[in-house]
Amino acid sequence: MQKISDKVINRLTLYHSILTDYLEKNIEYVSSPQIAELLHIDNTQIRKDIALLGYKGKCKVGYKAKDLKLLIEEKLKFKTVKTAFIVGAGNLGMALAKYDNFEAYGFKISALFDNSPLKIGIKLNDKEVFHLNKIPELAKEFNVKIAILTVPRVNAQEVTDFLVKSGIKYIWNFTPCVLNVPKSVQVWHENLIGNFLQFTVNHGVEEN
Amino acid sequence: MQKISDKVINRLTLYHSILTDYLEKNIEYVSSPQIAELLHIDNTQIRKDIALLGYKGKCKVGYKAKDLKLLIEEKLKFKTVKTAFIVGAGNLGMALAKYDNFEAYGFKISALFDNSPLKIGIKLNDKEVFHLNKIPELAKEFNVKIAILTVPRVNAQEVTDFLVKSGIKYIWNFTPCVLNVPKSVQVWHENLIGNFLQFTVNHGVEEN
Repeated sequence: MQKISDKVINRLTLYHSILTDYLEKNIEYVSSPQIAELLHIDNTQIRKDIALLGYKGKCKVGYKAKDLKLLIEEKLKFKTVKTAFIVGAGNLGMALAKYDNFEAYGFKISALFDNSPLKIGIKLNDKEVFHLNKIPELAKEFNVKIAILTVPRVNAQEVTDFLVKSGIKYIWNFTPCVLNVPKSVQVWHENLIGNFLQFTVNHGVEEN
Repeated sequence: MQKISDKVINRLTLYHSILTDYLEKNIEYVSSPQIAELLHIDNTQIRKDIALLGYKGKCKVGYKAKDLKLLIEEKLKFKTVKTAFIVGAGNLGMALAKYDNFEAYGFKISALFDNSPLKIGIKLNDKEVFHLNKIPELAKEFNVKIAILTVPRVNAQEVTDFLVKSGIKYIWNFTPCVLNVPKSVQVWHENLIGNFLQFTVNHGVEEN
């Protein structure tokens, strides 16, 4: 299958969000200039992205919101269930556990883990917080290969080593650390600082 | 000035994180193969990125960690202070207010805002939570142009309209919504879902 670039995936999810919004307001059609206006990006870019999905809008009325939404969901495999653990039940871990709509994207958080006795047993939207030492057992039992890492910076590498030993193969890393893992494990940096600096360095934020 | 691509900025911040780590361990030199090994990316890519900074490593010993770190900080303008408000003091807003090291990157959170009476007056690392209706006054008083939006999805557009009226010019959007703003305001989507789907669609996460 043709690989979709990261930037296209990013834009497709934004179109998806707009389509969801339109459908909630019972608006049946959406045009590329309307999307362009909302995202402040070029109309031709949007048409190009949507052409990748093999969908052509109707002249003057645009795209049928429901159909386009489904095509994006298919292309980005929303129906494929991806089960993950959240490791670190601090504010960020809690925020992600409660994040609006993750499940709609096929993303299922099955449990949280922490080492603080105060947090163990807490339930967030039916997701329970367990002690870290339960990870190997539960990862095996539920065949979980993805961990979302939201522990403090100082514990990041140590916890990562433990995740690797527990059979975790994919780590979505929200810590500001670069993690040392074997080649068999993939790390995806949610590089907040990097994202923020893209914004300030390249997009003209002035000093204040 | 030559524009640095978003991907390069992203990688430079990861190198910076590695350099911080090395210096904490009192390691003076770092080589591109060492960085490549940690990030699972190509050595030549790293050398190319670092050459952009106008720095050449020494044969066999590599780069001086301290110098390289400073060059990255200069290129990405860590010394330029960027003051921001966090709008929405839920778990995500709290997590960002407490985020390790934001200030090291020139990023200063001066206050948080929420509409819940239970949250107003709370202090997090010397940052106070104020009522949303204080935004216009405080934005003017402290000349704040950046807002980090961490409100629930349902309130996102309404709060955005209020931010725009209050003189905010840059919105770092952590909600899953596409925001409708005038052309004079820039929105930077922290598209968590998009980032996650890049990971799963393009990087081979299997169904489970």
